[in-house]
Amino acid sequence: MISVVIIGYGNVAHHLVEAFHKAKNLHLKQVYTRSIKTVEHLKPITSVTNSLELLVKADVYIISVTDDAIAKVSSQITGKNSFVVHTSGSVDMNQLQNNGRKGVFYPLQSFSKEKKVDFSTIPFCLEAENNKDLQLLETLAKTIGEKIYRINSLQRKQLHIAAVFVNNFVNHMYKIGYDICNQHNVPFEVLYPLIEETSKKIQHITPDKAQTGPAKRNDNLTIENHIKMLKEEQKNIYKILTNSIKNGEKL
Amino acid sequence: MISVVIIGYGNVAHHLVEAFHKAKNLHLKQVYTRSIKTVEHLKPITSVTNSLELLVKADVYIISVTDDAIAKVSSQITGKNSFVVHTSGSVDMNQLQNNGRKGVFYPLQSFSKEKKVDFSTIPFCLEAENNKDLQLLETLAKTIGEKIYRINSLQRKQLHIAAVFVNNFVNHMYKIGYDICNQHNVPFEVLYPLIEETSKKIQHITPDKAQTGPAKRNDNLTIENHIKMLKEEQKNIYKILTNSIKNGEKL
Repeated sequence: MISVVIIGYGNVAHHLVEAFHKAKNLHLKQVYTRSIKTVEHLKPITSVTNSLELLVKADVYIISVTDDAIAKVSSQITGKNSFVVHTSGSVDMNQLQNNGRKGVFYPLQSFSKEKKVDFSTIPFCLEAENNKDLQLLETLAKTIGEKIYRINSLQRKQLHIAAVFVNNFVNHMYKIGYDICNQHNVPFEVLYPLIEETSKKIQHITPDKAQTGPAKRNDNLTIENHIKMLKEEQKNIYKILTNSIKNGEKL
Repeated sequence: MISVVIIGYGNVAHHLVEAFHKAKNLHLKQVYTRSIKTVEHLKPITSVTNSLELLVKADVYIISVTDDAIAKVSSQITGKNSFVVHTSGSVDMNQLQNNGRKGVFYPLQSFSKEKKVDFSTIPFCLEAENNKDLQLLETLAKTIGEKIYRINSLQRKQLHIAAVFVNNFVNHMYKIGYDICNQHNVPFEVLYPLIEETSKKIQHITPDKAQTGPAKRNDNLTIENHIKMLKEEQKNIYKILTNSIKNGEKL
C-alpha cells in the first residue's frame, strides 16, 4: 500500500485525485490547495488542507502546481527524508527544493478538467535519484496506468519540445486549415477523417515514410498556385514548411 | 441502377473498384488502364480494357488518373452526352476536355493500396454543371458512402490547400517530433496518445480554443530555452510558428 499526498488542484491533480481514489493498493491521504473551497467536495474521500505546515506523513508527495511555483512549494515540504515529485514536463528534477528525495511523475497528455481521463492509455514518464525510488514511482504509476517509461530530465526536456511540435504546432496547422475553410464556406468537418487518418498513420510507418503531397513530390506548379491563394502569414508558413519537407533528410 | 466505368487503376481507383463491386444498385461495367496486366485479376467481376476506344456505354465515367493526365484522357472520351468526372482534389472541373457533361467525384482521404478503406467514413466532395447531374453523383456516392458534400471548384481548391496544412504539414511536425525523440533515445510512441488526443480535440472545440503551450501563454522563458536546443532548420520553424500562434487573431 503506497500512501500519497497531492499538492495542488489544477487539471492534472484533479484527474490524479479521481484515479487514485479508485485505485487499489493506494491510500490518498491528503490534498493540499491554497483555496480550500475548491477541494471541499473531496472531504468524503480524503483529508484536505490549505496549509503546507499541516501536511501528513506519506510515501510520496506529488506537487502538481504551475511550473513557476514548483521550487517554492517544494522548499516548504520539510520532512527530512520526504520523497517529493512534480508532474511537469518541462521542469528539471533538481529544481525541487525539498531537503529529502526527489523525483518526477509526469503523465504526458493534454488535460482539461471537463474531459474524462483514461490513465491506462497515458504514458507516465518517471525519474528519481535512485533505483529504489524509481521502482516506488513505477509501482505508484501502475496503480492507475499501464504505460511506464523511465525518462531523465534531459530526455524529458526534449520530449517537451517534441510535444510542442506534435501538439501545439499541429493544432496551429488545424487552425490555419480551419480559417481557410471558414473563409470559403467549406465545412471544416470535411477534413476530420483526413486529420484522424494522418494521426494514426504514423503509428504504423515513420512520419518520414508517411509523407505525401505537393512538397514531397516536388510538384512546384501546385505549390505556386497554393502560395498565390494564401494570406501573407499563411504564405510564409507554407513556404518554410514546404522547403523543409523538400530538404527532409538534411534536418 | 447506376452504371459506371472507371478509367485508371491507381490508389483511389483500386479502392473504388472494390467498393463499387460490393455496392447495391450499382453496375461496375468496365475498368480501363494502360497496362492491362494490373487489372487482369478483375476479370471475374468486370470487363477490363486498355483501349479508350473500346469503352462501353455507362451513366458515369470516373477518371482516376494523375492530375496531369486528366485533360488528355478526358478528351478521348468521345460520347456526345457522356458524363465524365474526375476524382482529384486539385484539378478544376473545367479542365475536363470531353464534349459531354462534366463533374467531380472527389473522396477526400489519403489512400494507399495496402490499407483497407471504409468509404462510409470518407467525405465525398461532389460537383457538376447542373443540378440533375449533381443528384446523380449524390446517388452514386451514397451507394458506397455516407458523408456527401457539394463543393465547387474554387472551394475544392481551398480545401486542398487546407488539406496540405492539416495533413502534409501536420505530418512534417510529426517528423520533427520523431527526429527530436530519436536524437535523444526517447521512444516516439510516448507521444502517440498526445497526438491522437490533439487530432480528436478539434472535433469538439475549434482549433483556436484548443490551443495550449508556451506560445499561447506567452511563456517566453520556455520558448527561448526550446530554441536554444533545436537545430537550425527546426529553430526557424519553431520561431515562425510560435510567432504565428502569438499573433493568432491577425492571420
